[in-house]
Amino acid sequence: MRTTVGWHAADAATLQRAPVRRRTLRPDDIAVRVDYCGVCHTDLHAVRGYRGEPGPMLVPGHEFTGVVTEVGSEVAGFEIGDPVAVGNIVDSCGDCAMCRAGQENFCREFPTLTYGGTDRRDGSATLGAYSREYLVRDRFAYHLPDGLDPAGAAPLLCAGITVWEPLRALGAGPGTRVAVVGLGGLGHLAVKLAVALGAETAVVSRSRGKATDARRLGAHEFLVSTDDSDMNAAGDSFDIVIDTISVPHDLGPYLGLVALDGTLSQVGYLGPVTVQTTDLLIGRKKLGSAGSGGRPATSALLDFCARHDITADIEVLPSARVNEALDRLERNDVRYRFVLDLSDLDRSSI
Amino acid sequence: MRTTVGWHAADAATLQRAPVRRRTLRPDDIAVRVDYCGVCHTDLHAVRGYRGEPGPMLVPGHEFTGVVTEVGSEVAGFEIGDPVAVGNIVDSCGDCAMCRAGQENFCREFPTLTYGGTDRRDGSATLGAYSREYLVRDRFAYHLPDGLDPAGAAPLLCAGITVWEPLRALGAGPGTRVAVVGLGGLGHLAVKLAVALGAETAVVSRSRGKATDARRLGAHEFLVSTDDSDMNAAGDSFDIVIDTISVPHDLGPYLGLVALDGTLSQVGYLGPVTVQTTDLLIGRKKLGSAGSGGRPATSALLDFCARHDITADIEVLPSARVNEALDRLERNDVRYRFVLDLSDLDRSSI
Repeated sequence: MRTTVGWHAADAATLQRAPVRRRTLRPDDIAVRVDYCGVCHTDLHAVRGYRGEPGPMLVPGHEFTGVVTEVGSEVAGFEIGDPVAVGNIVDSCGDCAMCRAGQENFCREFPTLTYGGTDRRDGSATLGAYSREYLVRDRFAYHLPDGLDPAGAAPLLCAGITVWEPLRALGAGPGTRVAVVGLGGLGHLAVKLAVALGAETAVVSRSRGKATDARRLGAHEFLVSTDDSDMNAAGDSFDIVIDTISVPHDLGPYLGLVALDGTLSQVGYLGPVTVQTTDLLIGRKKLGSAGSGGRPATSALLDFCARHDITADIEVLPSARVNEALDRLERNDVRYRFVLDLSDLDRSSI
Repeated sequence: MRTTVGWHAADAATLQRAPVRRRTLRPDDIAVRVDYCGVCHTDLHAVRGYRGEPGPMLVPGHEFTGVVTEVGSEVAGFEIGDPVAVGNIVDSCGDCAMCRAGQENFCREFPTLTYGGTDRRDGSATLGAYSREYLVRDRFAYHLPDGLDPAGAAPLLCAGITVWEPLRALGAGPGTRVAVVGLGGLGHLAVKLAVALGAETAVVSRSRGKATDARRLGAHEFLVSTDDSDMNAAGDSFDIVIDTISVPHDLGPYLGLVALDGTLSQVGYLGPVTVQTTDLLIGRKKLGSAGSGGRPATSALLDFCARHDITADIEVLPSARVNEALDRLERNDVRYRFVLDLSDLDRSSI
């Protein structure tokens, strides 16, 4: 075993600095010095839901970038010093139909989560990247392309891939119309990606104040979700609606935006949802969802982002201010993603 | 005005023979002698939900075939003696995006229903085809292709088109796998159509006793929905699931059958449905619905059925036995569609 340092949940309100134990490097592992880790809504849910001991330690963090510091004896694709990125899954069975299709995120045996999961080989609880070092099986690390800012790239590995997969699967591109509902961590990346894919892109938000930001991000249109005239005028006109709202909400008004044979993909709220079948029937509309991504899509996203110079709009905080980041995220007070700079963990004084 | 004879709801339990008034023939109308009318679940719901007078008379029937007996002065496409078919919509605005796309069934001003609707020109209540004559705007009548049995073809106009549209929109054909859930009026036509389209087709039913029929209809596979081993073995393997169950039910097990990026189209039950978002997320699955059809798709369906010799499996009853048909439909005691023979209405004694 080896030890690094990170931020663990002392209770549901507070993360505290603590030693974090990592496994001994395996032949197919790489060790990564974590430089930047995005702060995802999932982290907030995990911390606020933390029930304390007994039970495994909780160290959040599942969208990060850093540098390879050590490679296992069988690792061929990485060398010490390589900039890398890791997302929210770190292993899968590799054998099921979903894994064979390159959708390890849908592994029928369930993928191993970057934190809050169980390692497939030793049964230990996985601990996340709010820490200075992470050990990951080489297959689930990605080369960070040249030119991508490592801080701004970190959120691509969860927020980015979560909106990239449905945009690609649903065919976003020239000649299609995409509406992004909610302009937060997921939403602002969905806008950048949809625009770069060539889709005519709209932002739907309840805050008229976000119109300026929406245009700056490249959106061609802005709809106020509480304005019936905006919503009615745009009825039945979007091939793809990416709904990033993170709390339970009525899907009816957003299904109303979907065009004939189009799809609303709900990516922000993952609880049960009730829909009126007639809201789907009239226009032969579809409701879908998506989350995380497979290895091929994650590589493709990073390449695409490097070509199109896309990273998240971020606010970088030293990791010692992680509790402030979570509190502000809880109030939606972030444009558009917090990223923790873990280098402060090298100092023993914080 | 003109008068024919038909079956109207005396109360929620019983249809009775009565005179049915029809409008004076308009320039773009054709008059149809109704020979055969299918008995749809919608008819059953309408009758059982009938609240009596005051309120418009209820004459059900919206999938029928017959012969043109009279044409309006502006009608160019039909002649007296032409065999024709009519479905569940008889008019639409013609101007909205859906109508322009040939999806009059999704007309944004709502299409005029064959019964229980309101005529767009004179505001009268529409009365259905459980009657000997129907007057219909020429655009919403279809030539019945040579060789299609007029009795067996009647259910194509509602049950048939309702499953045809999602099969076509979702790309059923060679190389795709289709599961049809529920083997009733809709389901048995979905099987015939999916098989003829070239899809590898399975039937999913709670009744193991329907396996023989499923194979006779052309299905390649049969799954018992209550058999976990059947359902698990078929998990994530169907590109298209056509769910024809007509009562509220848990969609979870059927979403489990859907393959990566596939769709479950619910066509039998049209009330609100609750789904677990994770049942959609894992495998990026979609939930859709469909119902009725536009003019181009209806014509295409009739041509396709003529080429592939597809009609419904029916039990023909003289229309005087309509109450028996509804009672038996209520008990699911029909394989697979009742069709009323309206010729008995020519006799004054019934």
